[in-house]
Amino acid sequence: MKRHPDVELLRSDTLLRGRIFDVVDESVRLPSGLRQDVLIVDHPGAVCIAPLLATGELLLVRQYRHAAGDWLVEVPAGRLELGESPRAAAERELEEETGHRAGRLELLFEFYAAPGFCSERMSLFLARDLAPLDSARAADDDEELELVRARPEELLAGRAADAKTLLAAAVILARGLA
Amino acid sequence: MKRHPDVELLRSDTLLRGRIFDVVDESVRLPSGLRQDVLIVDHPGAVCIAPLLATGELLLVRQYRHAAGDWLVEVPAGRLELGESPRAAAERELEEETGHRAGRLELLFEFYAAPGFCSERMSLFLARDLAPLDSARAADDDEELELVRARPEELLAGRAADAKTLLAAAVILARGLA
Repeated sequence: MKRHPDVELLRSDTLLRGRIFDVVDESVRLPSGLRQDVLIVDHPGAVCIAPLLATGELLLVRQYRHAAGDWLVEVPAGRLELGESPRAAAERELEEETGHRAGRLELLFEFYAAPGFCSERMSLFLARDLAPLDSARAADDDEELELVRARPEELLAGRAADAKTLLAAAVILARGLA
Repeated sequence: MKRHPDVELLRSDTLLRGRIFDVVDESVRLPSGLRQDVLIVDHPGAVCIAPLLATGELLLVRQYRHAAGDWLVEVPAGRLELGESPRAAAERELEEETGHRAGRLELLFEFYAAPGFCSERMSLFLARDLAPLDSARAADDDEELELVRARPEELLAGRAADAKTLLAAAVILARGLA
């Protein structure tokens, strides 16, 4: 978790160590003297990839998301592995989840998913010049992914239901990329 | 947390009850037979508001976010209170955080902030015809907010660092609203 030199850490208790994230309970004092008590989900960070086909469609994955209690259509995404750069993670996740490699991979944004309570920082890449791989996909054992294609307009019109996928679709339209 | 009728819940343990969210450890079986073990941050849901001024600028709040270890510029946002509708929460948060009321408040999207591990569902509203209130603002006791204005282009160019604010800026540009 990133620390700011002007903010005094008064207390830090780790309440939970999970497979994907920890939960820490901290108290801090801001430069103004204000004290804040905060419960934080401490997350290693992640990447997501907007794979833009020559047709103007995005290559997406549909999967069950238990936190949403539903199957969602999303841009490919995944957590950073230990010591892995965001670019290397984006190349790996694109390959594992879609079976494609990108000729061009451009970082669009780095952002916090939910900065009110979660340290997760996400890098969003635009992937173009996509080529299918010969070898079979190697998704995680407990993942069940279906590949789908959709235009950015369809995603904004209700087909996508998560922030990173809506953001990818909106920025592609705003910049006239599709 | 939303449940899907086709997904069998095998086990549910609440590991932590926090002020803002709980953490639950669950196992489920999908229709295919696949079993998933998932650690979920169970969150009550939230709203955010893109307050668009007649100048084409957005009215934003700058505040310290301990999860990010930094001060961030974001669209106003806040959690749903018990039994509160997203629209009522958006009106309340806009008033508390910016001291403005909106003549027009339009729902743009409902989305999950981080569906891989968090149940938080967020409603994004576009607020227009903004009018300042006479009375003082009534932010939460442990909040310290500074109001700033920025154009959507500036937010996408690096001034914003969180998903909801980037999404608000990108969709305003994509739809030619500013």
